Amino acid sequence: MPEPRETAIAFARENRDRFLEELKALCAIPSISTSAEYKDEVRRAAEWVADHMRKIGLENVAVMDTPGHPVVYGDWLHASAEAPTVLIYGHYDVQPADPLDLWETPPFEPTVRGERIYARGATDMKGQVMASLNAVEAVLRSGGAPVNVKFFVEGEEEVGSVHLGDYIQANKDKLACTVALNPDTGMLAPDVPTITYALRGLVYFELKVFGPKSDLHSGVFGGVVHNPAQVIAELIAGMHDAEGRVTLPGFYDKVLPLDEAERAELARLPMTEAFYLEKSGAPALWGEKGYSPVERTGARPTLEINGLYSGFIGEGAKTVLPAYAMAKISCRLVPDQDPADVEAQLRAYLEANAPKTVTWELKVFPGPARASLSRIDSPGVQALAKAQETVWGKRPVFKREGGSVPVVGDIQNILGVDVVNTGFALPDDNLHAPNESLHLPTWYNGIDALTHFFFNLG
Amino acid sequence: MPEPRETAIAFARENRDRFLEELKALCAIPSISTSAEYKDEVRRAAEWVADHMRKIGLENVAVMDTPGHPVVYGDWLHASAEAPTVLIYGHYDVQPADPLDLWETPPFEPTVRGERIYARGATDMKGQVMASLNAVEAVLRSGGAPVNVKFFVEGEEEVGSVHLGDYIQANKDKLACTVALNPDTGMLAPDVPTITYALRGLVYFELKVFGPKSDLHSGVFGGVVHNPAQVIAELIAGMHDAEGRVTLPGFYDKVLPLDEAERAELARLPMTEAFYLEKSGAPALWGEKGYSPVERTGARPTLEINGLYSGFIGEGAKTVLPAYAMAKISCRLVPDQDPADVEAQLRAYLEANAPKTVTWELKVFPGPARASLSRIDSPGVQALAKAQETVWGKRPVFKREGGSVPVVGDIQNILGVDVVNTGFALPDDNLHAPNESLHLPTWYNGIDALTHFFFNLG
Repeated sequence: MPEPRETAIAFARENRDRFLEELKALCAIPSISTSAEYKDEVRRAAEWVADHMRKIGLENVAVMDTPGHPVVYGDWLHASAEAPTVLIYGHYDVQPADPLDLWETPPFEPTVRGERIYARGATDMKGQVMASLNAVEAVLRSGGAPVNVKFFVEGEEEVGSVHLGDYIQANKDKLACTVALNPDTGMLAPDVPTITYALRGLVYFELKVFGPKSDLHSGVFGGVVHNPAQVIAELIAGMHDAEGRVTLPGFYDKVLPLDEAERAELARLPMTEAFYLEKSGAPALWGEKGYSPVERTGARPTLEINGLYSGFIGEGAKTVLPAYAMAKISCRLVPDQDPADVEAQLRAYLEANAPKTVTWELKVFPGPARASLSRIDSPGVQALAKAQETVWGKRPVFKREGGSVPVVGDIQNILGVDVVNTGFALPDDNLHAPNESLHLPTWYNGIDALTHFFFNLG
Repeated sequence: MPEPRETAIAFARENRDRFLEELKALCAIPSISTSAEYKDEVRRAAEWVADHMRKIGLENVAVMDTPGHPVVYGDWLHASAEAPTVLIYGHYDVQPADPLDLWETPPFEPTVRGERIYARGATDMKGQVMASLNAVEAVLRSGGAPVNVKFFVEGEEEVGSVHLGDYIQANKDKLACTVALNPDTGMLAPDVPTITYALRGLVYFELKVFGPKSDLHSGVFGGVVHNPAQVIAELIAGMHDAEGRVTLPGFYDKVLPLDEAERAELARLPMTEAFYLEKSGAPALWGEKGYSPVERTGARPTLEINGLYSGFIGEGAKTVLPAYAMAKISCRLVPDQDPADVEAQLRAYLEANAPKTVTWELKVFPGPARASLSRIDSPGVQALAKAQETVWGKRPVFKREGGSVPVVGDIQNILGVDVVNTGFALPDDNLHAPNESLHLPTWYNGIDALTHFFFNLG
C-alpha cells in the first residue's frame, strides 16, 4: 500500500484537468475590488471560493463580512495533537482589466493558448489560491493529512488590504497557527524554484497642487501666475538627488543596511542588469548609486510617480494655464521604515519646498504596509525548500521581493509566526497588465510542491 | 441736413435691437472649429456671415474654400480715389463649449440676462465681427462712406489660423489695403477704452517621454527603471531658473528690450498686482524677476505647461510604473522671436538634458504665430484713439496683449500695413470658458466707436 504522500501526489496529477476547469470558473468572475461597480462580482467570487472549500472537505467555512469586501475562511483541524497548524493566505480579488483593447482574448473569458491560461487574476492570484486548495484537497484525500490547515482568503488585496489588519486582530484566536504560508510571491523562471524572505512595504499618496481659482488663458495670465503643473514638476524633480536617492528628510534613517553576507547571497541571483533591461524594455537602467539592481528592487526603498495629471490632455492644442495639478506618489519601504514616518517626511518636504504661489493637499491612502523579513532557517521555510528541491531537483533561490503583500507584516506582528512566501507566478505573466497569464507546467509543479510542503511540515 | 457721420451714428443707435437679434442668430450656430463633428455648422456660420454681408450692401461676397474651414470675403470699394482702404479681420468659429454642465443657459441658445448676452462666441468674437459689420452698415447707409472696406472673416482662429497665412499670401492683391483693423482684442474695463499695440506670438508643443515598453509593477521594477513621469518632471523643472527665466538656450537672444519710455507708459495701466491677484485667485503672483506684471504678460516671453499626463489618474491607488509621460508645452513669444528658433531651442534643451534612460518625441503643432507690434503714432491707431475719445469721453489706454492672434503678424508681414487692434471684450466675459458673455452697453459703444473710426480715417 502506497504512502499517503505518494497517494496525494498521484491524486493531484490525475486531477489536473479538473483543477484547470475549476480555475477557469473562478477566473471568469470579474472580482475587481478597486471599483464599486463590481461589488456584487467580488462577493460572487467569495461565495465561489467558499463553495469550493466545502466541496474539498474543509470545515467551518464562512464568508465573513468586513467593512469592505468579505474574507473567506475554512479549516481542517483533525491532524494529531502535536501536528502543526498552517495558516494559508490568499486573495480572490483582481486588478482592473483596462486597457481592454490590448487583450488578445477577453480578460474574464479564461483561454488556454499553448502552455498558458490567459485571464485577469490567473497568476495574481486566483491560480495561486487554487494551487493551495488543490494541494490541500490532495493531502486530505490521501487519508494521512499530517497538518491542520486554515485558509483565509481576502477580497481587498488590490486595494491595499485595507481591513485585513483589523480582521486578523479581531480573529486572532481563530487564525492561531504554527506557521503561515503566503503563495502570493513568484519564481524567477520556470526552472528556478524561489522562496521570498523579504517583502517591501508600501505607502501611497495623492498630491494636489492648486494655483488659480479656475483654468486661465495662458496668454492673458502666462508670466504672472505660477503654473501648478510647473510647480508639481519642480516638487517631484526635487524628490530625488543626482545619485538617485530619495531626498525626503530622514527617509533612510531607519533603513536596515545590507551586510556583506547577504549582499554576496543576493549577487548569486540571476536578476542581472541584462535581466531587468530585457524584462522592462527600458533603454537603460537607473537607480540609487552604490547598489546592484537586485539590491535596489529588494532591499532599498523607492519613491515612484504612479500618475500625473494637469490641464488639457486631449488631442490637439488648448492654451490653458491649469488651475491644479495632481500626482499619485508611492514609496516602497524596507525594514524598519514606518509608513507614518514616511508620510511625515513627505509633508515636511512639501512644507519646506512648495512655493507660496500655490496651495497643496496631501492624501494618504488607507492600508499602508510595513516591509517584512522571514528567517531562512525557520522550519516552515526549510519544509518548503525541501519540497521545491523534490519537485524541481534543485535547491530554491532565496530572494527579496520588491512588491508588497500588506498582510505578511500583519501576520508576523499580530499572530507572531513566521510567514513562508512562495508562489508560482513568473516574471512574464503580465501581472497587473493586459494579457495576464499563468504558466500551466509551473502551476502543476507548484501544486506538487505544496503537497510535499504539507507532508514535510507534518 | 445732418452730416453723414451724425446720420450713421443715429442709424446705429436706432437699429440696436435688430443688431442684437442678428447677433443671436449667428451665436446660435455651433461653429466649433476644433472638432470635425461640427464641420457643417462651421460652414453654416460662414454662409450666414456671407448672407449678412450681402444684406448690408457689401459686394464681391464669397465663401472661399481653404484646405480647412472657409474664409468669408466681402468689400465695398466705391469711396473716392484718394480714400483709404480698411481691411477688417474677424473669425466666425468658436471654442468648444464643454464642460456643458457649468453653463447656466445652453451655450448655443443665446440668452440676454441683465446687461449681458450669454452664448459661446458672444464675445470671442461673433460680437466683435457683428459690431464691425454693423458700423460699416451704418456708414454705408449714411450715404457718405469716406473709406473703402474689405472684410475677411475666417473659420480657423480657434485652431491656430492654420491656413490663413497661405490664404493671405494667395490673395495678396484682393486684400491690399491702407490699414487693417483687428477687433479681436479687448478693453480693460467698460469705462477704459483700450488699444492693443502689441500681441504675443505662440508656438505649441507636445513632448512625450518613453521609458519601459509597457506599464510596469512599481514594486517589481521600482528602483531599477527610470520613471518617465519623474523624468518629464525633471525636464520641466529645468525649463525655468530660480529667477523665473526660461532656460532654453538662446531663448532671450532676439527679445526686443523695453525702453524706459514704454515702461513708464505701461506702468500707468490699471493692471496692478492686485488686479492679477483678484482676476486669477492665485495665492500669490509669480514671474520673471525685474519686470512688472503688465510687462511680464505683454512684453516678455513665457513657457507654460498646458497639460501633463502619465500613468494612473483615476480614483484610488494603482501601483504602476508608467510606460510614458506627456506634456503639452507652449511658449508665448514677443518681437523678434521666431517660432522656428524656439522649437530648435527646445530640442537643444531636451538633447542636452534628457537622460539616456528614456527616449523622447517632440511634436510642434501647426500654425505657430509670431508676435506683432503696431506703431502708436500711425494714422489708423490715431483714428481709433480719437473715435474712442469721442464715445467714452477719454483717451484710450495703450496696452500690450499677452494672448496671440496669429493673423496679425501675417497681415503685417505679407500685406505690409499697420494693424489696429481693438475690440469690446471685457476681462470678465469668460472667454474660452463656460457662461461666455458680451456686455451689451460696451458693445453698443463699440459700434459707435467703429463708426467714428471709419469717418476719422476718411
